[in-house]
Amino acid sequence: MTTTTGTTDAPEGESEARRATLRDVATLAGVSIATASKALNERAHVRESTRDRVLAAATELAFTPNQAARSLTSGQTGTVGLIADDLDGRFSLPILMGAEDAFGTGQVSVFLCDARGDAIRERYHLDALLRRKVDGIIVVGARTDARPPLVGRIPVPVIYAYAPSTDTTDVSVVPDDVQAGRDAVSHLLSAGRQRIAHISGDAAYTAAQERATGIASALEAAGLELVGGSAQFGAWSEQWGRGAAQRVIDQYPEVDGMICGNDQISRGALETLQRSGWNVPHQTSVIGFDNWEVMTTGPSPTLSSIDLNLEQLGRTAAELLFESIQGQVEPGIRRITPRVVTRESS
Amino acid sequence: MTTTTGTTDAPEGESEARRATLRDVATLAGVSIATASKALNERAHVRESTRDRVLAAATELAFTPNQAARSLTSGQTGTVGLIADDLDGRFSLPILMGAEDAFGTGQVSVFLCDARGDAIRERYHLDALLRRKVDGIIVVGARTDARPPLVGRIPVPVIYAYAPSTDTTDVSVVPDDVQAGRDAVSHLLSAGRQRIAHISGDAAYTAAQERATGIASALEAAGLELVGGSAQFGAWSEQWGRGAAQRVIDQYPEVDGMICGNDQISRGALETLQRSGWNVPHQTSVIGFDNWEVMTTGPSPTLSSIDLNLEQLGRTAAELLFESIQGQVEPGIRRITPRVVTRESS
Repeated sequence: MTTTTGTTDAPEGESEARRATLRDVATLAGVSIATASKALNERAHVRESTRDRVLAAATELAFTPNQAARSLTSGQTGTVGLIADDLDGRFSLPILMGAEDAFGTGQVSVFLCDARGDAIRERYHLDALLRRKVDGIIVVGARTDARPPLVGRIPVPVIYAYAPSTDTTDVSVVPDDVQAGRDAVSHLLSAGRQRIAHISGDAAYTAAQERATGIASALEAAGLELVGGSAQFGAWSEQWGRGAAQRVIDQYPEVDGMICGNDQISRGALETLQRSGWNVPHQTSVIGFDNWEVMTTGPSPTLSSIDLNLEQLGRTAAELLFESIQGQVEPGIRRITPRVVTRESS
Repeated sequence: MTTTTGTTDAPEGESEARRATLRDVATLAGVSIATASKALNERAHVRESTRDRVLAAATELAFTPNQAARSLTSGQTGTVGLIADDLDGRFSLPILMGAEDAFGTGQVSVFLCDARGDAIRERYHLDALLRRKVDGIIVVGARTDARPPLVGRIPVPVIYAYAPSTDTTDVSVVPDDVQAGRDAVSHLLSAGRQRIAHISGDAAYTAAQERATGIASALEAAGLELVGGSAQFGAWSEQWGRGAAQRVIDQYPEVDGMICGNDQISRGALETLQRSGWNVPHQTSVIGFDNWEVMTTGPSPTLSSIDLNLEQLGRTAAELLFESIQGQVEPGIRRITPRVVTRESS
């Protein structure tokens, strides 16, 4: 671990004498960051034995929270701004909830501002948040493509979530879409599927490319290739899923598994298969990405999906913000591991 | 119009000498409230002729904005807190967007906090917003049932949106669900439908009851009654829609129109009709409520729906907040008129 961070200007010579972080204290004491914070700030609701363990760990590591961290964790000025770009909140709201859970109920308020992908709105909201002395900023993108960092001097730490910053000295946390693609393949292989098609969304999205990369590499490792030879890219819609699935079953009636770029495509594919008299999952399994529950639990059969763990992503963003306030975070991109949610379609 | 408001303690005797509001100025000058505000605050992007008209109207009405209103409209401290209860943002995010549009881009930042229907969280967020000197609060419920008002002394105006306050001295703005029910009936009648069933959601929701009331009254006015004699209440899900629609067509094969409690029920009903070989809309029309686009535009045929105009509701909430800051708003509940969105299913 190095001390190079996007938020401090520590001279190189300090790299051996890295200050202990709240995370170090929490790890040594075997508690969560939130609990460590509560214990150090002498709040209620921490058992005495836990507090003793945390204080012992803090002493052992010579932990000294800086003023900003103290004010944030003391709850007196605990406010974090979340600047979101997705109009429907599908990605930003789970991330907001995960962040609030990591900070602890009633300890930090997260204020969400909707920038709608508009740089002028983003700047305006950022200024409004900074004037109100938020302790940190989380920027949530509408898609996982890298985005330029916020401009200007920003006196508080910034974490980029879902969409990483193009500046490698920033701290970003994103879903692991390559792993998500691999997991979709492993899931179908473990169900005995061998002739798998991939109906993806818009090829211009990093998420579409990364999922396709993971799918291709997992199939190659298993000595297989995609039905039709390559992924079919199109749109993130049910309509595209219906049409693309029709072409797949017309041309490749041997298909026994479909990996769809998101839950909407998955739903469209399911509809085409059912209308054409195919039994899902007996003749072919279907799995999508995102695990958007209203889409996956609505139809019958319900749809399996790769969940990108956005609440976990939000919790990690909050923890990185905590640590950044202490000036101790390595820059770069963290990737959150997805999980398979198995339902009736696979 | 009276001067009784939920936000001032003006003595009764003042009722004849009501102070002019920004809305009065805007109406007299024939411009929007946002434009009137901009003109009075000498901002850019207002034509000179418009500004002159607004200033003349302000002079004529002896308009004097109070300090809070001036600070809000001057953009220096323009921040409104929005406390939301819906975890998925389906109702709060359109309302947030409408409110921001009414205030004007780059003039007021709306900070959304997610209280998750939890009174402790709500109180915590409220305190955090007030400590940061927001100019007003909009409280958005997850359902249209009346809710208790915020507790404690709140030094800024509060508008209740979507869910009205139980306190009749508060200012609330809600969808007109009775009218929405009437509109659904009128739409089907105008398409020549006479044998209409109503598959609703959870009967414990005010929205379910109000929509059913509107439907019953419109049918009665047309000399008709519901197929089956009454509404079928159940859940707000596709699964309920599928099962209930099956029972309707089994028992009442003469049905030629289905009004569904929301777009998910509508979608489930459509699926059952299609699986049973019914042609939608030729044999029977289907229409739902909410106009949630991902649900209504996903299937084929696409689904007609009654749009509750939540962005308009948000704009109205913002305008009421503007006016409340000047202490000039009549208490009570405003209802926003819905609109019919016709698609392929009707």
